[in-house]
Amino acid sequence: VVAVGDELLYGQTMNTNGSWLSGELSRIGLKVRHRAVVGDVEGDIQAAVASAMEGSEVVLVTGGLGPTPDDLTREAVASCLEVALVEDAALVEGLTARFKARGYETLPDQGRRMAMVPLGGEVLPNPHGAAPGLAMEGKNGRICILLPGVPREMRGIFTRGVEPLLKERFPDRLQEILHRIVNTHGVPESMLMDEIRTVLPEDPRQVSLAYLPDEVGVRLRLSTRQEDGLESASRRLDRLEQMLEPVLSRYRYEARSGDLAEAVGSALLRAGKTLAVAESCTGGLIGKRMTDLPGSSRYFLGGVVAYANEVKTGLLGLEGGLLAEDGVVSREVASAMAERAAILLRASAGIGITGIAGPSGGSREKPVGTVWYAVHLDDRTVARKELFPGDRTAIRARAAHGALGLLLRLLEGREG
Amino acid sequence: VVAVGDELLYGQTMNTNGSWLSGELSRIGLKVRHRAVVGDVEGDIQAAVASAMEGSEVVLVTGGLGPTPDDLTREAVASCLEVALVEDAALVEGLTARFKARGYETLPDQGRRMAMVPLGGEVLPNPHGAAPGLAMEGKNGRICILLPGVPREMRGIFTRGVEPLLKERFPDRLQEILHRIVNTHGVPESMLMDEIRTVLPEDPRQVSLAYLPDEVGVRLRLSTRQEDGLESASRRLDRLEQMLEPVLSRYRYEARSGDLAEAVGSALLRAGKTLAVAESCTGGLIGKRMTDLPGSSRYFLGGVVAYANEVKTGLLGLEGGLLAEDGVVSREVASAMAERAAILLRASAGIGITGIAGPSGGSREKPVGTVWYAVHLDDRTVARKELFPGDRTAIRARAAHGALGLLLRLLEGREG
Repeated sequence: VVAVGDELLYGQTMNTNGSWLSGELSRIGLKVRHRAVVGDVEGDIQAAVASAMEGSEVVLVTGGLGPTPDDLTREAVASCLEVALVEDAALVEGLTARFKARGYETLPDQGRRMAMVPLGGEVLPNPHGAAPGLAMEGKNGRICILLPGVPREMRGIFTRGVEPLLKERFPDRLQEILHRIVNTHGVPESMLMDEIRTVLPEDPRQVSLAYLPDEVGVRLRLSTRQEDGLESASRRLDRLEQMLEPVLSRYRYEARSGDLAEAVGSALLRAGKTLAVAESCTGGLIGKRMTDLPGSSRYFLGGVVAYANEVKTGLLGLEGGLLAEDGVVSREVASAMAERAAILLRASAGIGITGIAGPSGGSREKPVGTVWYAVHLDDRTVARKELFPGDRTAIRARAAHGALGLLLRLLEGREG
Repeated sequence: VVAVGDELLYGQTMNTNGSWLSGELSRIGLKVRHRAVVGDVEGDIQAAVASAMEGSEVVLVTGGLGPTPDDLTREAVASCLEVALVEDAALVEGLTARFKARGYETLPDQGRRMAMVPLGGEVLPNPHGAAPGLAMEGKNGRICILLPGVPREMRGIFTRGVEPLLKERFPDRLQEILHRIVNTHGVPESMLMDEIRTVLPEDPRQVSLAYLPDEVGVRLRLSTRQEDGLESASRRLDRLEQMLEPVLSRYRYEARSGDLAEAVGSALLRAGKTLAVAESCTGGLIGKRMTDLPGSSRYFLGGVVAYANEVKTGLLGLEGGLLAEDGVVSREVASAMAERAAILLRASAGIGITGIAGPSGGSREKPVGTVWYAVHLDDRTVARKELFPGDRTAIRARAAHGALGLLLRLLEGREG
């Protein structure tokens, strides 16, 4: 997949086309081997396409098919494949009508360029714009397909023209890979790997396992080819999941969006519980995360953002002595915050969180990253202290995630 | 710029690293020639890096430096450059300490791989994670730099290690384009363009103006080449800004981070005011936005997340009749929320916000996207109604932005 455009190389535009095509090709079972981005330079486009056609049986090129002088893809690819460009009468007619509708009397020369087709190439109609897609075959039988860069046009042509063409051309290749994602929380990547190795000492056959870590957790991707049918493939992933279960049962959570807050919401709903929060260092982030999801009013009541200490002792009603004795970042304060949130908002569960997100405010005893969070649930309050690495944003995200994870484990009876 | 990772080729993850690096390299004046994405296949990584090193003087590779068996970048690049990998004692020490902090007695073998450095290579410390960046020189004098794939780690290493290295190495290439960003809020792109056309009817010479819209506002980028020195270039941008001033003065705000919340924070600090919020549909987002910034405790006290109506009438103390009469999404409720927040938290300013973020809950009179927000400041309460387009996330972001913009204009005396 080759994307053409200076705006991509300047970083002013994300290459969403590349990602989208990757996803679509994977979906229909074709393996994407390589993706490239080049600027609006004829030689660079030629080189990228030539190199791609050496390594892959199908090359998709997006961008550079429009009417402006910096649209050079058509010419670059034609010369790369050593074919002439010829004017297509039907395209000229369609473009003329299109330009007339916009108030032009005749088709301008620039617009006319969009009617040029490589000799022997196939035109793929564009349902949403002027420049059509083009499909052609190289001397080595390899296929090169040109698509406009405007995402909606590119997607329309792909779905209507390219996908059917590829399915017809490679019927035996379209054995989809079956993926299954398992979300985990509360365990770092390397520790998860070590634990998984104890239950899965050798790489299993026919299935594969990938770790996809992000700032707050690790997703596991279980994959297998489904040459022998969806059912067998699905059974292979079931077996792999069963083998991993002793480890995963401690860390996994179910959420279609991959978001831990969604799992917490479902667990609250199942348990018939409501949640209130009292946030200091996260400043509203947990409430924001919980209400990102539609329907959260069924279990999330709200909370108090007690950023200033006066709000902790005032509106939230903590005893002043508590802050003085143990300090604001302490088990006692986090626990009292969780309890007071639940009481004040008449919720069945409360989260309290207090910490030092930095960059300043740390001390030797309580360095930046020190966070105490507590969950109050069913007349019981559990508190945890953590020292999170990273900058202010990471510490806050990890703190929110830690508190939500503790609540989830308590709701599911997984916390001792 | 080469990005490594199966998840990128499957379309499961966007290649945000490629875009970000493109933008940074452009900013310091280096031209990005080619970007590539390859999977976790040693041969493919080698081929991509070898080809990149033929075409460009500097090659940046992201991803594949972690501890898992599918992290192959280090090995692939070393063999591509024909250098051995050797263990770095300082790195072993750092990694051992890191793993000990997480409860490991010794450094596991997998973790140890992150201490391997190509012979003669330079270690670029990772401020946010375990795997360091690595810089090495090929036989042809060309530079290859390896960075982890986790965006925050990659960015941290680039800024601290790679940017200084490139600036030192290519001092004569860094004929920067001088950019100046002007942040605006409260005006849509097309209206801003129309207004700017009234003060700038023709494209100015030697300078250029780009509109960078995002979900909540439009940034203007003023650019000029600085071949004739920084001072002349800077004067050209000054002149352009002066011409635009009649329009910009109504919409611009000053914030180094580009974040409207930063401008609000500075304005509160200048005015010696403190802020409390009462959030319904945004669920904590405004508090989160205000406390994203370090030092926000000087002006942000906290607030009440009044997501459930019982919290609005209970903890926040709104009269029940108010909700029944005018409905929860109304001028009266938003205004009362702003006032109660200020009173309860003893703040000099209060924000109240209530609306329908969707996807459900809309009606004919109050469709999804209807938001009332109010600001209470100095014995005066100003409320606004808006109908925001977009999905739940966009509506919430725009609502928070709208309320912060209103507060800023009131603090700066720009609101009538």
